[in-house]
Amino acid sequence: MKSYTVIGTGAVGGYFGGRLAENGKRVNFLARTDYRVIKETGLRVDSPRGNFHLKNVNVYSRTEDLPVADVLLIALKTTSNKILRDLITPIVHKDTAILVLQNGLGMEEEFKSWFPENPVLGAMCFICSRKAGPGHIDHQDYGMINLGAMSSCDNELRDAILRDMEESDIPTTLEENLSAARWRKLLWNIPYNGLSVALDAHTDLIMRTPSSRQMIRRLMEEVIRGAAACGTIIEDEAIDKMLVFTDKMIPYEPSMKVDYDNNRAMELEYMYQKPLETAAARGYEMKSVWMLYKQLMFLEESGQSDK
Amino acid sequence: MKSYTVIGTGAVGGYFGGRLAENGKRVNFLARTDYRVIKETGLRVDSPRGNFHLKNVNVYSRTEDLPVADVLLIALKTTSNKILRDLITPIVHKDTAILVLQNGLGMEEEFKSWFPENPVLGAMCFICSRKAGPGHIDHQDYGMINLGAMSSCDNELRDAILRDMEESDIPTTLEENLSAARWRKLLWNIPYNGLSVALDAHTDLIMRTPSSRQMIRRLMEEVIRGAAACGTIIEDEAIDKMLVFTDKMIPYEPSMKVDYDNNRAMELEYMYQKPLETAAARGYEMKSVWMLYKQLMFLEESGQSDK
Repeated sequence: MKSYTVIGTGAVGGYFGGRLAENGKRVNFLARTDYRVIKETGLRVDSPRGNFHLKNVNVYSRTEDLPVADVLLIALKTTSNKILRDLITPIVHKDTAILVLQNGLGMEEEFKSWFPENPVLGAMCFICSRKAGPGHIDHQDYGMINLGAMSSCDNELRDAILRDMEESDIPTTLEENLSAARWRKLLWNIPYNGLSVALDAHTDLIMRTPSSRQMIRRLMEEVIRGAAACGTIIEDEAIDKMLVFTDKMIPYEPSMKVDYDNNRAMELEYMYQKPLETAAARGYEMKSVWMLYKQLMFLEESGQSDK
Repeated sequence: MKSYTVIGTGAVGGYFGGRLAENGKRVNFLARTDYRVIKETGLRVDSPRGNFHLKNVNVYSRTEDLPVADVLLIALKTTSNKILRDLITPIVHKDTAILVLQNGLGMEEEFKSWFPENPVLGAMCFICSRKAGPGHIDHQDYGMINLGAMSSCDNELRDAILRDMEESDIPTTLEENLSAARWRKLLWNIPYNGLSVALDAHTDLIMRTPSSRQMIRRLMEEVIRGAAACGTIIEDEAIDKMLVFTDKMIPYEPSMKVDYDNNRAMELEYMYQKPLETAAARGYEMKSVWMLYKQLMFLEESGQSDK
């Protein structure tokens, strides 16, 4: 059994870290805004897989106070990645593994460049979850992860994490090609996150309006070509599968729309800029994705200039 | 001197038709919503080139009542083109010339297909003007036209219209290549009209925000390539010239934004769909323009589905 430190006790870190702790794993939590509430009243998770309430949580407000752990679960939004290196440096010891639970492309490579001696893994999280209040997570649906490791990482570590997850009611699959899995996740994230903000629409309106449905398809076609330029083959049938999957979802507000509507920064750098740059460096320009990205940038830039 | 009938007595038709009438030309006006006001109180034009008030206007509410005229000035928005053929058929006689004052691509070809025996001309109107109220035009800036004719049209007719315009304080230039001039006008209209709606922004915010300025440039690059595919060479320097020109403009709300904000249909078919289709038929896909077009379509479609 490994020990864990959750960096960022929000919708994702609070849920997965909470599940691990509820099932007897050793878990520390780093919380910033919610530190005092969690310290005093614990961590509550409402979930269709069973509610739970952790009364005594190993919660910390400063990295320096955190005990040593085997695995860091990186669960802050990528908009915090600028400060993450300094934030976690005090707790990255020899052999500390870094498991990235974020969305986007290029995060693992960045952690590896910061901590070249440490194992770096990535988890694609499939979960509908939100923070209902301080120390209170509202888990709505799904809740599985797809776990991959950078090629330099040994399988024993990865398999130990897998066992801990599965023993904690977190359905987990193994991913042999982490970079390919990141691109596959972008196939949904790039069109739906951005369009939900640009069009001010939930998934259901996007899906039932002919023009936006065409945009979704066009964006997905480009992501597939961008992935191919980077060596990841995603079969064309994945588009129709994902459309059918999204048609069946309950009307959903992607996380980027939630962030935007709550005046929080959007995860544009890792979800748009890095995929665009990575594909362009291999000779393919995702032109429609670029248009969407620039429109989202406009919202950030013009919003800032109004303040 | 030719006689004229203005089809659509709004911001454009009211101004140019008004100038012609003020300067002694024979002008009839077709007005629908404003017919009674114009009949009773005349047509008022406020203008930096001199205000005027035509007290006795030859105004009609039904095409059937209109007298014969040499030239029809088509000044309705292209969103009315579906009904235009039937609307003007009663007044298109042998030799009646049709002069299209609309924005977009493919209008002249359409009129020619409806009335193959009649001369068809086009005018690119450079004007900032709006309807202040019934029978009341507020002309703000510019006010010149660039006049071209389809190749089947004789020069004598074109030159006669030019003279009438110039005698009526309407600065007019001659355009030898009508289709090229339509594309040149799209170089401004396609990026600024659509983005002003999609980004809910006036020209000044679009120009001073880095990401939207990049979008404008990208869209213009595509229009130039689309035009080239259709045989019209627009030099790359036209982009920088147009950016400088727009930087110097007073903050401006393009007509499509005015239409959208007032719940009127947008001129998507002739400003976006036809240029996209025309370029695609010649082998060039304007992908960024397509994204913008589909987003504007979404606004129309989803707005309709809410009603």
